[in-house]
Amino acid sequence: MKKNKQTATVLFSDCDSTKFISYPNYFQWFDRATQQLFFESGAAWVKVWKEFDLAGFPLVDVQATFFGRAREGDEIEIESWVEEWRDKTFVVKHVITVASDVVVVGHEIRTWAVADDSAAKGIKAAEIPAEFKSRFD
Amino acid sequence: MKKNKQTATVLFSDCDSTKFISYPNYFQWFDRATQQLFFESGAAWVKVWKEFDLAGFPLVDVQATFFGRAREGDEIEIESWVEEWRDKTFVVKHVITVASDVVVVGHEIRTWAVADDSAAKGIKAAEIPAEFKSRFD
Amino acid sequence: MKKNKQTATVLFSDCDSTKFISYPNYFQWFDRATQQLFFESGAAWVKVWKEFDLAGFPLVDVQATFFGRAREGDEIEIESWVEEWRDKTFVVKHVITVASDVVVVGHEIRTWAVADDSAAKGIKAAEIPAEFKSRFD
Amino acid sequence: MKKNKQTATVLFSDCDSTKFISYPNYFQWFDRATQQLFFESGAAWVKVWKEFDLAGFPLVDVQATFFGRAREGDEIEIESWVEEWRDKTFVVKHVITVASDVVVVGHEIRTWAVADDSAAKGIKAAEIPAEFKSRFD
Repeated sequence: MKKNKQTATVLFSDCDSTKFISYPNYFQWFDRATQQLFFESGAAWVKVWKEFDLAGFPLVDVQATFFGRAREGDEIEIESWVEEWRDKTFVVKHVITVASDVVVVGHEIRTWAVADDSAAKGIKAAEIPAEFKSRFD
Repeated sequence: MKKNKQTATVLFSDCDSTKFISYPNYFQWFDRATQQLFFESGAAWVKVWKEFDLAGFPLVDVQATFFGRAREGDEIEIESWVEEWRDKTFVVKHVITVASDVVVVGHEIRTWAVADDSAAKGIKAAEIPAEFKSRFD
Repeated sequence: MKKNKQTATVLFSDCDSTKFISYPNYFQWFDRATQQLFFESGAAWVKVWKEFDLAGFPLVDVQATFFGRAREGDEIEIESWVEEWRDKTFVVKHVITVASDVVVVGHEIRTWAVADDSAAKGIKAAEIPAEFKSRFD
Repeated sequence: MKKNKQTATVLFSDCDSTKFISYPNYFQWFDRATQQLFFESGAAWVKVWKEFDLAGFPLVDVQATFFGRAREGDEIEIESWVEEWRDKTFVVKHVITVASDVVVVGHEIRTWAVADDSAAKGIKAAEIPAEFKSRFD
């Protein structure tokens, strides 16, 4: 299973006046890490969406549990992978560590969505091609 | 129970190239709505943290489920309230609607944290005063 | 000349560990205030871009001078207006105050841009219709 | 003169519905690139501010000129350096390129600020030590 690892130094501007990371930033990192994971698996979103005529990978559910805190100067590592391919959705898992201590664990559940003018939201979930799933093996 | 309602027009810059809101923005709004709720209950964070000598309200858990999507020009309403006061943590619930349709439902679990130099993280959870809880009745 | 005024309470999460607003936020506010100004002048971007078949209002130049600092709890006011309509670009001026004290003054110069496949950037500047300019009188 | 170079892949979530980078992001990158430049010159902000008892490096002026546009998948390079050390302020220059084409050029003017309770803003500009300046040679 393909995993993407990224490292970053926590900067002053990631933190708020408690001197720790402002939490919505973690979701920015989740979102970016998922994009990066796809990018490095030859599935950059802009390319994939054209290839499969998709309307995107909209979120169904996102969750994060916080075990620790990171502060300016800390080196964080974000490890991300598709933990589960379901029929029409997929689960991306993210683990953020500082010096091997787990700081945040979370997941995103995203839909393989195609345009559907008859649907209330203008999109509907569709079957994820097996070939696509295999790119992440 | 005190509830905070805020409305906003979804702007161009809230959205990405799918033309819908970029999801990490929802967590920015959760975070801000919680601050606003406290603010309007006479418990602005900066004031409360001084009053009770707190190290902040760090997150334990955050979660959101997405039922719909909002796009540029939509009027969104964010309703937020403390759904549960536990001994040392509290749960803030957020419901985001567009024209009464539920778009996102989520929660934040936050800690009533005081500084503790002997703790690994430099902070520990403490008992939330009953008097404080009652400010949100 | 149409002016847009918005007020906001500076929240904890707008600030960094100096306890003052993190400066890139001011540009978020400039960008949003311009959108709001157009919105309230009956020229919401999404609508206008369709109406005039535009590729957007890309930036030519942005600048801000900082005279003061705003901190959590401050009530800021952002006043914005189109200071100058040029042939193919326009200048939006922004003034941010706290209790009538000027904190930031800045401007954005934006282009009235149409798609042009023969151009290196895929867009070119075009003449701004006089009728459109008059909507902001 | 020390220069900091950073590269990044422009991700989907950096862009808005025009499919190009949303401009306030460039200022986030300026701000971060300055932090990174100091970090790599042995002058991480959190460390330096303690060392010299500073109240931070608040902004006096920021400006950017846009020559091109970057879109999802582009590899951008941000080059940053202190272009000028003045008595109490310093100018950081940023040049952002895609495949050697200049996309954005900008600068930040920042103050070497110390706390001053008698000043209206609570801080005042102070002389920058020559020794500190020399760390960037």
